[in-house]
Amino acid sequence: MFELIHTEGRARVGKIETAHGAFRTPAFMPVGTQGSVKGICPRELREMDVPIILGNTYHLMIRPGLETIRRFGGLHGFAGWTGPILTDSGGYQVFSLAALREISDAGVAFRSHVDGAPLFLGPREALDAQAALGSDIAMLFDECPPWTADASALARAVDRTIAWARESRRAIDAWRGTGGVIPPNQRHFAIVQGGGSAELRARCASELAAMDFDGYAIGGVSVGEPEPMMLDAIDITEPHLPPGKPRYAMGLGMPAQIIELVARGIDLFDCVLPTRMARHGSAFTWGGTLHLHNAHLAQDPSPIESGCACYACQTFSRAYIRHLLKSREILGLRLVSLHNLHFYMSLMTEIRDAIARGCFGQFRQDALARLRSCEITGDIEDAAP
Amino acid sequence: MFELIHTEGRARVGKIETAHGAFRTPAFMPVGTQGSVKGICPRELREMDVPIILGNTYHLMIRPGLETIRRFGGLHGFAGWTGPILTDSGGYQVFSLAALREISDAGVAFRSHVDGAPLFLGPREALDAQAALGSDIAMLFDECPPWTADASALARAVDRTIAWARESRRAIDAWRGTGGVIPPNQRHFAIVQGGGSAELRARCASELAAMDFDGYAIGGVSVGEPEPMMLDAIDITEPHLPPGKPRYAMGLGMPAQIIELVARGIDLFDCVLPTRMARHGSAFTWGGTLHLHNAHLAQDPSPIESGCACYACQTFSRAYIRHLLKSREILGLRLVSLHNLHFYMSLMTEIRDAIARGCFGQFRQDALARLRSCEITGDIEDAAP
Repeated sequence: MFELIHTEGRARVGKIETAHGAFRTPAFMPVGTQGSVKGICPRELREMDVPIILGNTYHLMIRPGLETIRRFGGLHGFAGWTGPILTDSGGYQVFSLAALREISDAGVAFRSHVDGAPLFLGPREALDAQAALGSDIAMLFDECPPWTADASALARAVDRTIAWARESRRAIDAWRGTGGVIPPNQRHFAIVQGGGSAELRARCASELAAMDFDGYAIGGVSVGEPEPMMLDAIDITEPHLPPGKPRYAMGLGMPAQIIELVARGIDLFDCVLPTRMARHGSAFTWGGTLHLHNAHLAQDPSPIESGCACYACQTFSRAYIRHLLKSREILGLRLVSLHNLHFYMSLMTEIRDAIARGCFGQFRQDALARLRSCEITGDIEDAAP
Repeated sequence: MFELIHTEGRARVGKIETAHGAFRTPAFMPVGTQGSVKGICPRELREMDVPIILGNTYHLMIRPGLETIRRFGGLHGFAGWTGPILTDSGGYQVFSLAALREISDAGVAFRSHVDGAPLFLGPREALDAQAALGSDIAMLFDECPPWTADASALARAVDRTIAWARESRRAIDAWRGTGGVIPPNQRHFAIVQGGGSAELRARCASELAAMDFDGYAIGGVSVGEPEPMMLDAIDITEPHLPPGKPRYAMGLGMPAQIIELVARGIDLFDCVLPTRMARHGSAFTWGGTLHLHNAHLAQDPSPIESGCACYACQTFSRAYIRHLLKSREILGLRLVSLHNLHFYMSLMTEIRDAIARGCFGQFRQDALARLRSCEITGDIEDAAP
């Protein structure tokens, strides 16, 4: 499913093929938590050349429920999105959000936060759930400990993550053989845990790599940890990932972080920041983050970002968008969300072009200088879960 | 500005020309209270062939303020809408919403509900405000009494409405003569008051007609009164309006009401119901109002309305839209708003076609039978202000 096309240092341009279309990496996946990228319709996503979106298994199994989505032929049919979809395993949310959870070596028993119904997620249940969702890329069930976990908790999480990956491998192979359950073109990515421990990360990555999954994610990042710790976790993990498979940094990140992670060999990203920042009235620009609630923009006739090709910037002034946000008009956050997603798509295009031309090193230096005022490290925590 | 093209009984098809384009009547104006039709962008309005939108002077003078909008060349430039705009005078809101208002023969002194700033609206101020907004059709300042007002309060409101219209006429002629203040192509509609009194309605209409404005509205309807009283107010007023000018029933109405009002010679309508009902999860269809929160729609694969050409119906199921509404996803109310506005636009097209073909009588009978479950009379009150 993955083809490596260009490299410059550790940065890579690749191509991922899925049953719902191919796209180039490095790529950013907008998050459609409940089957909708907040405020944006599929037509707008296509117009922005969004290559792939992410759906959250935990939220969708709770509402509307997997059987509803299965009846619609999966999330593509249910949500009207015809492009590629990656689903998470539900593990991260069940560990961080679910009420009354009981964790065992078999998985996690918990209750729905909507109606209190008893639910269970383990490696097989997470695969089955994502088979119902019909995603193009499914994530394995893993244990994501808090970033403050001690060494023994980290080791136990790695042990469980490896054991669950082994069980997932067996289930995928068995179910594939019988021609049932798992969609024939669905791909599976394993998740490397291990916190800040180089030894645990290396062991987890090597064991998972030996099981030959279709791609590898680095988990346990973007969970509230300081940025240097996140970059360190990537640095100690990436050398142990097979170079011929896509690598995905889960839940990341700010524009400057994405550039730094591409430089460290990462191919895939997802983050709620483009739409979440929009709901707070903050727009991403190459000149830094623009806070549209600011009074000095009340008469500003310029677009959010001069030269930007998005519908918001082609049509409306900062003053009008600020007015909409102040008046709590839904169109305001729609327009800022559109701009922010467009900004991320443009960023990824520029990154791919720079690597393809062999000038990513220079691009990285220039872009980070331009984006420096974008770096709001406090927002990493806000981005979870 | 107005040309009568077809008539059938009292029902009329006409054409209104404005500086921002021409459109056919009967026509429905979506309401953009704060410079935005809630949740919908101008591109979507154009795609639905929305002929004209309405802006609220009271809300816009309070936020962002008239000077801001004047600086952007009016509401067209500020809000990115290039089609025709009608603005109300602010009178209705200032009588019903404003805090600490003091009414005199000169107008109404009140305070901003946003920052408490002292403001004043009278006939000249309302014209000046709408000149700043640069609307294609401006409404005269009138006094709209509650529907429960007694005879003397109704008579006083009619006296003031006539006196203010006379002052407006003088101001328009004087300002036009000097080449300033009022945009050269702006048109002005007077508003007939008089409640349920045939004598007051006739007097008000005749006096205003003698002043030769560009169009005439029937006010004091859709202010909480029972539907038969509303229809009666239209019936007693309409014969006194000049047939060669457009007639506008302010704040109306439900689909069945619009058909009834067209049958009574009305050409223009505005109402918040398409977007307000959408926010409550209710969709207009030819089979009645569909309440999308209903549990029995949770697995329903059909669109809101079979055969509907709107983006929501062409792309999404009732089950998905219900899921979005239950999950409080913004896309849910966007899609229902789109459908509801599209329904109103289709309704108006069918009405115009029926009149043009001389079969409006039959259309009215058939349509009212199909729409009967749409008639939720309690929502008339909800529609104000």
